Amino acid sequence: MTDVKTPYDELLTELKAVSLLGSCAAVLGWDEQTYLPPAGAEHRANQLGFLAGIGHERATSPRIDELLAELEGSGLLGDPDSAMAVNVREARRSYDRATKLPRRLVEEISRVTSLGQQAWVAARKEKNFPAFQPWLEQILTLKREEAAAIGYGDGVPYDALLDDYEPGAKTADVQAVFAPLRDATVQLVTAIRESGKRPDVSILERRYPIDAQREFGIEAATKIGFDFNAGRLDVAHHPFCSGFGPGDCRLTTRYDEHHFPGAFFGTLHEAGHGIYEQGLDQEAFGTALGETTSLGIHESQSRMWENFVGRSRAFWSHVFPSAREHFPEALSNVPVDDFYAAINDVRPSFIRVEADEVTYNLHIMLRFELEQSLIAGDLQPADVPAAWNEKFTQFFGITPPDDAQGCLQDIHWSAGLFGYFPTYALGNMYAGQFFEAAAKELGDLNALFAAGDFLPLKEWLNRNIHCRGKQYRADRLVEVVTGEPLSQEPLVRHLHAKFDPLFGL
Amino acid sequence: MTDVKTPYDELLTELKAVSLLGSCAAVLGWDEQTYLPPAGAEHRANQLGFLAGIGHERATSPRIDELLAELEGSGLLGDPDSAMAVNVREARRSYDRATKLPRRLVEEISRVTSLGQQAWVAARKEKNFPAFQPWLEQILTLKREEAAAIGYGDGVPYDALLDDYEPGAKTADVQAVFAPLRDATVQLVTAIRESGKRPDVSILERRYPIDAQREFGIEAATKIGFDFNAGRLDVAHHPFCSGFGPGDCRLTTRYDEHHFPGAFFGTLHEAGHGIYEQGLDQEAFGTALGETTSLGIHESQSRMWENFVGRSRAFWSHVFPSAREHFPEALSNVPVDDFYAAINDVRPSFIRVEADEVTYNLHIMLRFELEQSLIAGDLQPADVPAAWNEKFTQFFGITPPDDAQGCLQDIHWSAGLFGYFPTYALGNMYAGQFFEAAAKELGDLNALFAAGDFLPLKEWLNRNIHCRGKQYRADRLVEVVTGEPLSQEPLVRHLHAKFDPLFGL
Repeated sequence: MTDVKTPYDELLTELKAVSLLGSCAAVLGWDEQTYLPPAGAEHRANQLGFLAGIGHERATSPRIDELLAELEGSGLLGDPDSAMAVNVREARRSYDRATKLPRRLVEEISRVTSLGQQAWVAARKEKNFPAFQPWLEQILTLKREEAAAIGYGDGVPYDALLDDYEPGAKTADVQAVFAPLRDATVQLVTAIRESGKRPDVSILERRYPIDAQREFGIEAATKIGFDFNAGRLDVAHHPFCSGFGPGDCRLTTRYDEHHFPGAFFGTLHEAGHGIYEQGLDQEAFGTALGETTSLGIHESQSRMWENFVGRSRAFWSHVFPSAREHFPEALSNVPVDDFYAAINDVRPSFIRVEADEVTYNLHIMLRFELEQSLIAGDLQPADVPAAWNEKFTQFFGITPPDDAQGCLQDIHWSAGLFGYFPTYALGNMYAGQFFEAAAKELGDLNALFAAGDFLPLKEWLNRNIHCRGKQYRADRLVEVVTGEPLSQEPLVRHLHAKFDPLFGL
Repeated sequence: MTDVKTPYDELLTELKAVSLLGSCAAVLGWDEQTYLPPAGAEHRANQLGFLAGIGHERATSPRIDELLAELEGSGLLGDPDSAMAVNVREARRSYDRATKLPRRLVEEISRVTSLGQQAWVAARKEKNFPAFQPWLEQILTLKREEAAAIGYGDGVPYDALLDDYEPGAKTADVQAVFAPLRDATVQLVTAIRESGKRPDVSILERRYPIDAQREFGIEAATKIGFDFNAGRLDVAHHPFCSGFGPGDCRLTTRYDEHHFPGAFFGTLHEAGHGIYEQGLDQEAFGTALGETTSLGIHESQSRMWENFVGRSRAFWSHVFPSAREHFPEALSNVPVDDFYAAINDVRPSFIRVEADEVTYNLHIMLRFELEQSLIAGDLQPADVPAAWNEKFTQFFGITPPDDAQGCLQDIHWSAGLFGYFPTYALGNMYAGQFFEAAAKELGDLNALFAAGDFLPLKEWLNRNIHCRGKQYRADRLVEVVTGEPLSQEPLVRHLHAKFDPLFGL
């Protein structure tokens, strides 16, 4: 029997070095979005480009290929779910993806998207799409180059980009679940509109002092299980969660004194991501078993805590007394049911991150369609505002008044994240499936939430999803955990169970 | 003529890569001191250790030696003040210092000082010098080894250590200026004590709300020319300034609601460092011409803005109305002259970092003398407390009640920073010289300050000191700028001009 201990240990050492470099870049990326002074943008782009370059060099070192080949030929990877087999499988995937990209392209993408994000911030502020358009053009050219370099078999270039975020997923498969979800969503939105019922959402626009919002958000994130001894909450233009590694996970949100839901549900959402990061096997840092398995699964965690838990009647029956203490001016005369109805209003709106649980998926489908056209070259960057507004009107029946509320609202394209958006809707579907499976094992989740008992769900997620890292890819994980393949049905059931009574359907 | 363009360009590329790595580590170091969650400490140490390792590897690459040798033999470095000659000279110095130390010694110093600092924290807390003594012994042995490896010609081992912080400075030269400075200081302190005058310092211990302190500190730092578009001010337990590179310089301070001077003068001090960093030639980042020239010169900038400007009567006649608006409760009934007297109280005290402008230098001289004896082996670690207290009593006329207020107060020795202390007092003397030279050119500086006009001084420093980077080492820079070699006289003149009237001498 070949002695493979030495090559495997050497491989792990190399993989951990690459991860450490990536985690250093993550700190600089977080700082760029939270605290970077304006004049430091160019230097930060140089720093990040440099780290990306040396990270790429190390990740594509021929030595890794040799070690992988030796292990792959060793006959020791028989059990495909064993730690060694998983780490080798995922290292092979990363190595092959990375070696297909020339270093020049990696550095150029890092540099252009770093500057592109700064340009996007300014363009969005000024509602000035033409100021961003040249960056979008450059980024698209680079992403098409990336897709060509990665390859996509007999699929479409978009497959190569999607696969970066949702390993193994194909554009056609996503289209196949999106179609019935869209039909069900449009039907539900129509029924809600025709119900004529409209909650009083003005209570959410009262004065909610920002310090109190921050405190209440941290209280809620702590309740659901985010550990602030191993993390933080800061302010960023475009909220995100970044796990730097063991013991350090950063959440961000943004506050509006006269709009309660934005920061609060944003905080729960990012805390959901953070709980996934904090639930990883910390000892396995730097290897596949210590990493989250896909963005879709990541999003299933954030959306579950934000919507399935955070917008439930049971959650608010527990936290509303504290909300009243934090916001006496806004909430002292508001019954909890009115508040619950307000945070669950369903209506077409312009901003994806503020959309309700039902219409949200339509926002994703719009972006999914547009970015497929952009990558395919069927849509030109200059035509994005018109195409966005046309499709938006078709999906939602309303037209964005400006590009800040239209095609400039998201950071993704400026950051080069094409293929990322569909993972949000995949996450909603996975969340529906996991939530049903958890309830099967744990019993009445709403009774637990009403008693302030969120740890059983958190620990169920830790056990079934988080601690497994990349052991299973998303499609297999959902089958292992729920016994069923990816499906929109549990999500649609959840939406009806919740919104039918709210709107008297 | 040899074509040296290519090796020089290659050298600059390598030097910039090393600087970029260092600037990434600086971001992580800043975050460690400002925002790192407690559980992230170990991972951050791993990240920083990893970056230090690859930085060292790159900085000691034999290719740099080859490039330097080629350039040194090219005959193109005839003008020693040319950009190429300066960059090659300083790159050679860094390369030789980095490669003269065996890796084992570097790692051992890192390990022992890391543990030594932990031992020091505990020993200081428990006022227990014997608990720290074995670490001091080990550290001294290692620092003597370091001095031997670096070399010191026909000088003393301490020269090799001092040179790390103040390139080119010799122990004997520092002794030569410290002796008359000590005599003048002791004389002035005695006269002040005998004057019997004592300002009412209790006004500085009133309530100064932290938000207002922060706002007022930023206002003052902006006034003296720190650019917040290219920098920030955050909170850290141990205040520092970190220049990350072009457009990004971070200041930190710490607030005490009932002690005004700490945060305010700390902010001006760090802003002085920051103005130096911001005044560097940003295009020259990564080369000697884009770097500060020595710790002594750096300190001359921070101490000038903190003391020569920030504690002047003229400065306060301009900013006191704003101070009253920020702190109405504390200052509405305080005449500006009383406030000015309070922030300029002079009295012997035990803690260096809280010392006034006059006695501060005595704290430095005491440490300078003791650490020379320690490195030379004339003083044994076991005898440090007795030697400290004896010398302290001789210098200050008071005796530390315990070692926490005596020889255990500073982190420096536990961190292996022998040779660092004298740069603080050198900075004060350089500040005196630069301030006199600036006044010769700009006229009555106090009249400018009283009118809120700080930019002439800032721009004079930009022109004469900052934009030169490492073109001249400290000793030569002071001659080029002031026409005189290093001297204590301008500082002594400044102290008399200020404190004689304050104490009626």
